[in-house]
This record gives sequence, C-alpha cells and structure tokens, in this order.
Amino acid sequence: MDILKERIKSDGVAVGTEILKVDSFLNHRIDVRLFEEIGAEFRRRFSDVADKTDKILTVEASGIAVAAFVSRYFGYPPAVFAKKEMPNTMDEDYYFSEIMSFTKMKMSSIRIAKKYLRAGERVLIIDDFLAHGQAALGLVNLVAQAGAEILGVGIVIEKSFQGGGRKLRAKGLRVESLAIVEKVEDGNILFAP
Amino acid sequence: MDILKERIKSDGVAVGTEILKVDSFLNHRIDVRLFEEIGAEFRRRFSDVADKTDKILTVEASGIAVAAFVSRYFGYPPAVFAKKEMPNTMDEDYYFSEIMSFTKMKMSSIRIAKKYLRAGERVLIIDDFLAHGQAALGLVNLVAQAGAEILGVGIVIEKSFQGGGRKLRAKGLRVESLAIVEKVEDGNILFAP
Repeated sequence: MDILKERIKSDGVAVGTEILKVDSFLNHRIDVRLFEEIGAEFRRRFSDVADKTDKILTVEASGIAVAAFVSRYFGYPPAVFAKKEMPNTMDEDYYFSEIMSFTKMKMSSIRIAKKYLRAGERVLIIDDFLAHGQAALGLVNLVAQAGAEILGVGIVIEKSFQGGGRKLRAKGLRVESLAIVEKVEDGNILFAP
Repeated sequence: MDILKERIKSDGVAVGTEILKVDSFLNHRIDVRLFEEIGAEFRRRFSDVADKTDKILTVEASGIAVAAFVSRYFGYPPAVFAKKEMPNTMDEDYYFSEIMSFTKMKMSSIRIAKKYLRAGERVLIIDDFLAHGQAALGLVNLVAQAGAEILGVGIVIEKSFQGGGRKLRAKGLRVESLAIVEKVEDGNILFAP
C-alpha cells in the first residue's frame, strides 16, 4: 500500500533496531482519512471473503479504530475488541489468553466475553502492528477456544524481522500486511520488496 | 438521540444502581453502523464549531472508535487518544493527569505527548461514557496544561446521577450528551426527559 509506505517513510521514526514509532498517525494521534484508505485496502485484499465475514476481531487499544474502519468497508459486521483489563462490568464467562509483551517485557492477558465469539463464526483478525506476534497469536487462541473460524489476519504494519508473521503463516493462516518492514537500522526504515 | 436511547433500552443491561452495561454495541462488541450515526449526530450538535475544530481528543480504549467517527464527520481533523500506560516508544515530553477510577477503585494516569496537543488549538473532547467525570476532567486538565482551548465535550452516554456532567458544566464547559440516563434501578433504565 504505497500511500501507507510513503507515510511511514515521511512520519515514522526508527529507534534502534527494534522500534518503529508511528504515533503521529497510527497509534496516538490518528489520521482518520488514512484509516479510510486502510479500510478500503483491506476490503480489496480480502474481497473474496468480505461477504462472508461475520465478525472483525482485534485487541485494544490501537487496533480498535482500524477494526472499526474495516467493518465500515466490509458492510458493517460487528467489530469486537479483546480487553486487556478485566472490567468490573464483565461478570459473564469469557475466553482468555496469556500473552507476552516483548516491548514491555511482561505477561498480560486478553479476554473476550464468550457471548461475543461463537462457534462457527467466520472471523477476520485485524491489528495495527505485527511484531513478535503475541497479540495476534493470543487472538488466534481465543478464536480456537470459541470454535470459530479464522478467514485471515489483516495487519497495517508488519515488522517481519521480529518473526510474528512467520509464526502465523506457519499455522497456515493467511496474513495480509499493508506494509512490511524488513529492517530498522540507523534511523532508516527498509521495506520488503 | 432516539436511535441510541432505543438501543440502550433494548440491549443495555442495568446492574444494581450504578452500572449500565452496553458492551453489546458500544464498548466490547461495537456496532459500527451506530457509530456512523453517532458521528453524524455530534456533527449536528456541534455544527457551529465543527469547522474550527483542530483536534478530537479522547482517552483509550472505548473512546477511540467514537472519536475516529467524529473526526470523519468533522472533515477529518486529527484524533488524539490519551494513553493509560506509558508505552516504551513514548520517550518524549508528555502531559499527564491523575484520575480516579470509581468502578475499579484505583488511581491511574493518562498522558498525551506534548507535540500532539499545542497551545491555542481548539479541541473537542469525546468519550463514550460520562459517569463521575474523572476521565473527562483528566482530559480537561491535559488541555489546560497545553494551553489549548476546549470547544466542548461530546459524550455518548451520560449517567447524570453520578455527577460528572454537573462538574464539567460547573466549569462553564459545553457538554453535549447523546443520551442522558437519570437512574438505573431494579433492572430499569430511566432517561432524562
């Protein structure tokens, strides 16, 4: 997605060899016009399954707006975001999955109320970033617990050098990443060809 | 906003005298078509200031999708969401504000990178819920620290019996709530006339 790569080049900030900061347009200040383009592009990439997508699934917080705009371009299937904290209002049964945050170096968990993810539902997983793959694998785990089906995984920015994409594809999952960053080094951002 | 009140009546769940659960369409599973209506309604309510809104401001997580759709109907000003955790990628200066969560009975803090909230900017604060007003007051505090100007506060559901709206209005702020719940009792949800 050229418009996205251009934006990453102009506004993204490479820090060390691991971190790509895109908080000027994707995950702190958000450029909603770009989110429209992102929603439309996911619709193109997943056009063969768009009409049978029962649910868009993501995890709070940065994934939420992406998932909402994907829903918009998919004809408004419900979007569900997994929660990172246990809300006091979440007294019903839920699925949960432990995930490791490599950036924060701590374990956390994500959860979804069982009533919002049902056996047999066809689910598209959406997230803003794919790095080590922990969040995405956690969502895959939640879908498996529910007995639902994964149509694919849509990622705005994949950092391929951290291996999350490889893990997902090794499970036979279809992963569509709108921009794939191969390397972050000396302040430079190198995209996959 | 009648369509919203109808939805709260049909799908909302009153728990005790404090809690209104709307996680079936607003803050866990989200009905994005309703978010379109919400964005359009905020545009109507704030039509006099829509063209001079420099920024939509909210706090993660549930406010994000609401803010994104408000941006869409306001001609795409940037939406900024305050963060609840310190991300490892947030090394720059930030404003922060301590807030008390009455539902979780604990203090937490919210923060915004200074570069995304500037003196003189005209800001519309958006959130999904207004209860005791802690999150909104925290955002008001961040805006004051930045020397920016608040055009108004747009809330999807205000629970007026918890006093947050009163506190904001006592500060002279314009608060527009799309649905105002006066009382939650015995499983019933009573709206302000």
